[in-house]
Amino acid sequence: MNPEEFRKQGHLLIDRIADYRSNIAERPVMAQVEPGYLKAALPATAPTQGEPFERILDDVDQLLMPGLSHWQHPDFFGYFPSNGTLSSVLGDFLSTGLGVLGLSWQSSPALSELEETSVDWLRQMIGLSGAWSGVIQDTASTSTLVALICARERASDYALVRGGLQAQSKPLMIYTSAQAHSSVDKAALLAGFGKHNIRYIETDEAFAMRPEALARAIEQDLAAGLQPCAIVATTGTTATTAVDPLQPIGVIARAHGLWLHVDSAMAGSAMILPECRWMWDGIEQADSIVVNAHKWLGVAFDCSLYFVRDPQHLIRVMSTNPSYLQSAVDSEVKNLRDWGIPLGRRFRALKLWFMLRSEGVEGLQQRLRRDLENAQWLAQQIEGAGDWALLAPVQLQTLCIRHQPAGLEGEALDQHTRAWADRLNASGLAYVTPATLQGQWMVRISIGALPTEREHVQRLWQRLQAVVLG
Amino acid sequence: MNPEEFRKQGHLLIDRIADYRSNIAERPVMAQVEPGYLKAALPATAPTQGEPFERILDDVDQLLMPGLSHWQHPDFFGYFPSNGTLSSVLGDFLSTGLGVLGLSWQSSPALSELEETSVDWLRQMIGLSGAWSGVIQDTASTSTLVALICARERASDYALVRGGLQAQSKPLMIYTSAQAHSSVDKAALLAGFGKHNIRYIETDEAFAMRPEALARAIEQDLAAGLQPCAIVATTGTTATTAVDPLQPIGVIARAHGLWLHVDSAMAGSAMILPECRWMWDGIEQADSIVVNAHKWLGVAFDCSLYFVRDPQHLIRVMSTNPSYLQSAVDSEVKNLRDWGIPLGRRFRALKLWFMLRSEGVEGLQQRLRRDLENAQWLAQQIEGAGDWALLAPVQLQTLCIRHQPAGLEGEALDQHTRAWADRLNASGLAYVTPATLQGQWMVRISIGALPTEREHVQRLWQRLQAVVLG
Ligand SMILES: Cc1ncc(COP(=O)(O)O)c(C=O)c1O
Ligand SMILES: Cc1ncc(COP(=O)(O)O)c(C=O)c1O
Repeated sequence: MNPEEFRKQGHLLIDRIADYRSNIAERPVMAQVEPGYLKAALPATAPTQGEPFERILDDVDQLLMPGLSHWQHPDFFGYFPSNGTLSSVLGDFLSTGLGVLGLSWQSSPALSELEETSVDWLRQMIGLSGAWSGVIQDTASTSTLVALICARERASDYALVRGGLQAQSKPLMIYTSAQAHSSVDKAALLAGFGKHNIRYIETDEAFAMRPEALARAIEQDLAAGLQPCAIVATTGTTATTAVDPLQPIGVIARAHGLWLHVDSAMAGSAMILPECRWMWDGIEQADSIVVNAHKWLGVAFDCSLYFVRDPQHLIRVMSTNPSYLQSAVDSEVKNLRDWGIPLGRRFRALKLWFMLRSEGVEGLQQRLRRDLENAQWLAQQIEGAGDWALLAPVQLQTLCIRHQPAGLEGEALDQHTRAWADRLNASGLAYVTPATLQGQWMVRISIGALPTEREHVQRLWQRLQAVVLG
Repeated sequence: MNPEEFRKQGHLLIDRIADYRSNIAERPVMAQVEPGYLKAALPATAPTQGEPFERILDDVDQLLMPGLSHWQHPDFFGYFPSNGTLSSVLGDFLSTGLGVLGLSWQSSPALSELEETSVDWLRQMIGLSGAWSGVIQDTASTSTLVALICARERASDYALVRGGLQAQSKPLMIYTSAQAHSSVDKAALLAGFGKHNIRYIETDEAFAMRPEALARAIEQDLAAGLQPCAIVATTGTTATTAVDPLQPIGVIARAHGLWLHVDSAMAGSAMILPECRWMWDGIEQADSIVVNAHKWLGVAFDCSLYFVRDPQHLIRVMSTNPSYLQSAVDSEVKNLRDWGIPLGRRFRALKLWFMLRSEGVEGLQQRLRRDLENAQWLAQQIEGAGDWALLAPVQLQTLCIRHQPAGLEGEALDQHTRAWADRLNASGLAYVTPATLQGQWMVRISIGALPTEREHVQRLWQRLQAVVLG
């Protein structure tokens, strides 16, 4: 495809995307297709000759669109929001169109420097001190993996340059709450710690980590000859948006010299609101933090911000320096390849920078406050209604709810819950996520898709009341 | 930004990108800015109020463009090509515009299924048997990390569910060539093996791994009570595009039950040409392979294909299954979260699928053959010229060259080489990569940017002859 054909098709594509976003509410939120539907419809091999672009776009309409669940839909209340604001979408378009790479500063200076600046803008917006340096990773899963590898290397005094984790004499231990995201477990396993060396600390009635239980677990492990290494605390857990108390957890981490990683993948966005900053009370004691700008905040996926207090440590763990990547200015610049796992890097800062400038801090604050208010409104309806229960404090924009008619419990209640959630999702009128809490199924309603206004939440409440009737 | 504003600005942006690609040859290839230039020019904090989009685009022109090195430029001969064909760019635009995520099949069925199909198309194009299953990762660095973690877990019989690598009694050993990419080292270190447990096998006169030396190293380690775990072979090394002999290496891997990972990040693209398939002789003995579709082949970065023979093993190592990610169809579908590190995933298959359909297999083959012929042409000029040396066989599209006037050697020759390479890069007329080979500096000329035709290579040859004169 040459630039003139690109220009022509690009204009058509822009109109399609604009139409998609304008008319998205007309589509069923959740895809209504069967496993294998698309594989069966596509040819088994790539075409020998190029095909006209119109035919590809036709297939997008006919074959792909029915198989999408629409995350940018006003009735999307599933998982956590993954908003792609249209300003950030344009920033990402520019990134892909330019096609430049940031292995090193020299390989595209503006890429590295814009990342440094825009990440620093966000650092200030979420109230972190100037002691933090940030970088963009793809996802929180990767950020947490990087954090645990860094913790491992600090605890082992850089065993990676010697015998690695294999040479570790006392097992290194990881502490997290039983409510932590599955990515914490995955990171610990991939980093080589082993499942037996992860302690899942019990939580309180609000599903937050109990610091006394954490302290006790560490003491026990020390007594047993094990070596505590890192704590992963969460601000805004996935199931209930619980907030682990960072102040006492940080004190424990400091007392034992442990790495403290804070998973704020979701709730980090809320830190742009002063009224939510209490959740981060004690954050300055952490060693690393992850905040997903690609969730509620609205930067088009993927854009996970990873902040560290000691960038030299990160660089020492991550850096490689072959001759073909060296340049004369290496001592003066930030080479992003040494801040994460991949060598090649997109110009990801463009989408963050475009959004911050186009929406402004107040614009973003307003949208997040709208969502918090909508969540409070829905919480009130549920609390005021018979047969409905709110299962966790609504501190953010996510509600954990259950419809529990008198006499229904245990297995029967689970069946009821799953049945109505499935009915609702299958209707295409809304998308919610069933999940378990304390061994019992419930339904998560996560408010905060870009186009979700009060009217959509009101309609959701009506639909919930209707759908539980069967 | 609402959809109507997006439509308006999107059209303007398409024109800018089309213009950029049309007129790119007028720009200096390498950025001519000083470290810190952009940070100094940007405000220290994010704007409180949103700004007009026009102002952002003005800053792109004034501030960012001078700080880019242009990877899509016809005179870009640096690193390896990272081509963003315009059809794949449009596929990526659609992905970002839709803003759907593929954590699980259910979270957007078409995303998972299109990835499965388009990756399978590419599998066939590069001549791999139906025994392979593929998935898209971000980069080869990540793919190789995943491979070494999988190797670790196979060798330790899934120690991750017990004491992890910390419980390993005999150290697990990794074998790779001294010419392997730095990402192999990085992956082994991040996976916890430790530098002392990596063996760098010597290479032959063509810089390919010596299988006898590999066999010897394994025997020695076994005799010393160590546990050989994995071999990483390379098809197309970074410095010289050397090709490790997979047939004998595969036999050795099988004999000792070792994991064989093949890093074909660069040369994998060439496997769509039957005349290049000899490089992969023996490939079916491997356990995992990485092919960067985002390099020479032309899928807009990032799109690294990771192929495995035993997907169940990959899934067992990578999977997590919390309730909030479960769905009724899990047993029937491919959940991409279990095929790599990140949970959230973009709709990356769109850019691959758009390119394959728009260019067709023959279109891609033609472009790659053009580049191979251009490389042979330049190799002939260099071989025929006095004072110039070709330092490695030109098997692909990359040349390793040196200008060595009589009497110049050692340190003085290095100074000469680096000086002329720097002069050339600073001129903005071409971009090449200096690197070391056998302890001496040389210059890599990597042909294969999308718009690079014979005339550009001819002009490069004139410029090379001129620039060495001072
Ligand atoms: C608390 C928390 N941490 C981590 C993640 C993983 O995010 P990612 O997809 O960026 O890896 C999530 C995803 O929802 C999350 O809620
Ligand atoms: C042989 C080889 N392997 C791996 C890589 C790393 O690629 P990526 O940037 O996708 O991690 C490169 C990059 O040039 C390479 O040449």
